[in-house]
Amino acid sequence: MDQIKQVAIVGGVHGNEFSGIYLIRHYQQQPQWITRSSFQCQTIWANPEAHHANKRYLHSDLNRQFKTADLANPNLSNYEQSRAKVLNQQLGPKGNAKTDLLIDLHNTTSNMGACLILTQAGPFYNQLAAYVKMQMPEAIISRDEDHIAAQDHALMCTLGRYGVLVEVGPQPQSVLRHDVMDLMHRMTQHILDFVQLYNTNTVPNLPKQTEAFRYLTSIKLPVNEQGERLGMVHKNVQDKDYHPIHRGDPLFSLFDGGVIYYEGENTVYPTFINEAAYYDNNLAMSLNEKVIIELP
Amino acid sequence: MDQIKQVAIVGGVHGNEFSGIYLIRHYQQQPQWITRSSFQCQTIWANPEAHHANKRYLHSDLNRQFKTADLANPNLSNYEQSRAKVLNQQLGPKGNAKTDLLIDLHNTTSNMGACLILTQAGPFYNQLAAYVKMQMPEAIISRDEDHIAAQDHALMCTLGRYGVLVEVGPQPQSVLRHDVMDLMHRMTQHILDFVQLYNTNTVPNLPKQTEAFRYLTSIKLPVNEQGERLGMVHKNVQDKDYHPIHRGDPLFSLFDGGVIYYEGENTVYPTFINEAAYYDNNLAMSLNEKVIIELP
Repeated sequence: MDQIKQVAIVGGVHGNEFSGIYLIRHYQQQPQWITRSSFQCQTIWANPEAHHANKRYLHSDLNRQFKTADLANPNLSNYEQSRAKVLNQQLGPKGNAKTDLLIDLHNTTSNMGACLILTQAGPFYNQLAAYVKMQMPEAIISRDEDHIAAQDHALMCTLGRYGVLVEVGPQPQSVLRHDVMDLMHRMTQHILDFVQLYNTNTVPNLPKQTEAFRYLTSIKLPVNEQGERLGMVHKNVQDKDYHPIHRGDPLFSLFDGGVIYYEGENTVYPTFINEAAYYDNNLAMSLNEKVIIELP
Repeated sequence: MDQIKQVAIVGGVHGNEFSGIYLIRHYQQQPQWITRSSFQCQTIWANPEAHHANKRYLHSDLNRQFKTADLANPNLSNYEQSRAKVLNQQLGPKGNAKTDLLIDLHNTTSNMGACLILTQAGPFYNQLAAYVKMQMPEAIISRDEDHIAAQDHALMCTLGRYGVLVEVGPQPQSVLRHDVMDLMHRMTQHILDFVQLYNTNTVPNLPKQTEAFRYLTSIKLPVNEQGERLGMVHKNVQDKDYHPIHRGDPLFSLFDGGVIYYEGENTVYPTFINEAAYYDNNLAMSLNEKVIIELP
């Protein structure tokens, strides 16, 4: 029987996402919150230097450094690339990890609420998603390229044998919001509770169908040939993460007064709308389809 | 008769407050928006290097460098201190400025809407406040230490013969929101319209009384003797800028589960609640009293 013996809760992969950093401090001071009888749980502060600099990262995005090939590449040696190798040693090694479940805590400036992001598929994840959604109906379940093998995923949560990402917003970079902290704490507690039930073979009856959003593609802000931005996310879309976008709906407001409309045939559901951290790549939002997670 | 002949609209004093930077670019491309018959209007990008670094400032907060004594002090020579001296030469000199009115555009992560901040008092400001509030009822008028002489004020807007600060939020640092941009544009247009009416002696009948908020003091996040934060702004206060705080209302939620309550005798009105940029000084919010601006 599958058993989850070692859990790691990771905060501060991004230095200006404060909720995870403060939540693992809280758990360090009050370890009863992460204590369950059937597994060990540790807390990890992934990128302290980025937090001290009050930035997402110093040199590279730490949450893009965990492809198996990159972890083995000695030429990738800047601060975050080095942190990834150390974390891989500490919690991995990826592909044969001593960590059975890695829970990676993140914030977004987008209005995404409490979102459980799954980057792999399988019975454990399907039951976890159904349980979290049942206990916390306002939670969002997201499937993020879970068709890609773990070894080719760059996200830190793919370092564990199992791994999930808890993404909570909206919270400006470098701010700690009480309501966002509460949501992150509640979702993390439900995940730990599920692991306890899973290990002890006492998972309750779960809904047979759970709604989720599956990542399709990202779209960029409009720019000119010099790379200068020509517009911004339209106010009709701003803060409407997970709301449907139909053909003909406005996407961008141009500074010259024009509007760019969605021209796709299929209805899509946006996430990470106007996320501050994605401006460096001019990403405006991710587009998703709605899917159903089925339990047997 | 008092005439305002030279107006300067300043954006990007803080490099990660995007609305002003993009609004002055918009005005540069479509100058009809800042053209009025009775005055000249120029746009100024105050701190480009901070924007390129995607930070509030490189070395010092540029919006704290404009005391007359500091502008004259050659030992204050880092990037922002140097920028202040250059801007003083370009738009000032402070105390005898060629700029009759300086409009300084800012964002806050706090839920402050469109706020017109006055740091000096007098008939021009009183009429301007009454006009803006009449045209834009959702606007907030703020009096920020307007009893202090301009020469002792450190804010950039005090460089002009007249000066105001347009503060719009909530907007995360390093994000451009369409709705926030619209609010900043609308308030700026009302200010320019008022100057035109003022210069041509055609100011319409204004309300005799206009509600405003006057800064009293700032309060800090709770910290221990090592300077570590012990709590965060309570969710009952978060986003409630300008809402009354009465004795006994919660202010802070402590990580150990406790709550700190407001103990003052007088009802106060908070602004800049949980503003990201003020974390370096552990400032949690400003407290204000409600006042009335009276016209004769």
